[in-house]
Amino acid sequence: MIIGIVVGSVWATRKEQRLDGFKLLIVREIKPTGEKTNTYHIAGDLVDAGVNDMVLLTRGSSARQTEDTKEKPIDAIIVGVIDRIDLEV
Amino acid sequence: MIIGIVVGSVWATRKEQRLDGFKLLIVREIKPTGEKTNTYHIAGDLVDAGVNDMVLLTRGSSARQTEDTKEKPIDAIIVGVIDRIDLEV
Amino acid sequence: MIIGIVVGSVWATRKEQRLDGFKLLIVREIKPTGEKTNTYHIAGDLVDAGVNDMVLLTRGSSARQTEDTKEKPIDAIIVGVIDRIDLEV
Amino acid sequence: MIIGIVVGSVWATRKEQRLDGFKLLIVREIKPTGEKTNTYHIAGDLVDAGVNDMVLLTRGSSARQTEDTKEKPIDAIIVGVIDRIDLEV
Amino acid sequence: MIIGIVVGSVWATRKEQRLDGFKLLIVREIKPTGEKTNTYHIAGDLVDAGVNDMVLLTRGSSARQTEDTKEKPIDAIIVGVIDRIDLEV
Repeated sequence: MIIGIVVGSVWATRKEQRLDGFKLLIVREIKPTGEKTNTYHIAGDLVDAGVNDMVLLTRGSSARQTEDTKEKPIDAIIVGVIDRIDLEV
Repeated sequence: MIIGIVVGSVWATRKEQRLDGFKLLIVREIKPTGEKTNTYHIAGDLVDAGVNDMVLLTRGSSARQTEDTKEKPIDAIIVGVIDRIDLEV
Repeated sequence: MIIGIVVGSVWATRKEQRLDGFKLLIVREIKPTGEKTNTYHIAGDLVDAGVNDMVLLTRGSSARQTEDTKEKPIDAIIVGVIDRIDLEV
Repeated sequence: MIIGIVVGSVWATRKEQRLDGFKLLIVREIKPTGEKTNTYHIAGDLVDAGVNDMVLLTRGSSARQTEDTKEKPIDAIIVGVIDRIDLEV
Repeated sequence: MIIGIVVGSVWATRKEQRLDGFKLLIVREIKPTGEKTNTYHIAGDLVDAGVNDMVLLTRGSSARQTEDTKEKPIDAIIVGVIDRIDLEV
């Protein structure tokens, strides 16, 4: 998984029907050190995340291993809102 | 998922039979900020997208999670035409 | 999917038995603009492609969604020979 | 698989329920030569790894091929603590 | 698939039980032109490869499509020892 910050959302009226009802958020990838990257992901939201939340992102087929995303054409989901990062080294 | 702009199409007469009937579009990846990248994807089109449309792209095995792409050798599909991006941070 | 040019082939006598009989081609990735990249892929050939052909490449688990590649340890296949690219933007 | 050093952990109270009980570690990718990279992965821990351990990381759908991670939205796991690297060339 | 040179091996006593018995080799990725890269992969060995062998590497879920790797948490395997590369362009 990777870490990111929610920075916005994407709206699409015309879309594949299996995506109906999904909130699609824009996540900017960051390093655990806090360093911002220039990589962005569009992810389905499973934990009611909001702008500025630091989140945990799962990608690939693993993004479909939940009740809500099973058999959906989604390749990235937000699986958690991060409370704390302990970076010890 | 990622965001891109449809910039063209690809034609192949000689192809794997399971690809028959698919419109294959060229999508240029962009950042949610609008910044164009030099990364391109060839994607099956599920939403009747056209040149200049901003689209949402699903990749990997998740691209096969639709009626039209099930068990097809396709690793990228356009799943939505984007109406609006809200970038708040 | 991505686009590439067939630039050669790879021969392996000692190999996993499920790969027996596969022609393995070397594909140099290019941009739809024609720009050559320094990225190469070794791909199974399903469409009798030859050196200098411009081809369409499917990667990942989607490469196994054909009669010939089902349950084979292959992660990239050539699924089409490209006749024409329309790049409009 | 890739090699990394455990450098910390991530805590998320609000998370997808299938992630409950997982220890999520931060792994900094390194080269087998020992060179540190600037790439980090958040991975589920299956072998009780600790900070400063050199570990082996499996990613993608293969990360779900264990009793503990089956059908979980996890795309990276620590599958071993590395005792020794023999780099001969 | 990609091409690499076997440059060493990795030893882990404490590991996920499904990895027991696997020889884990370090493969340095190379270009078909012979150019060495700074990318390394840890891969299960299915063909009794040795140091300095040029090998063919399969990654992702396709790495599990063999008798030995089925349902194992392995995301890269060596599927062949390369005898010859014909690079014609």
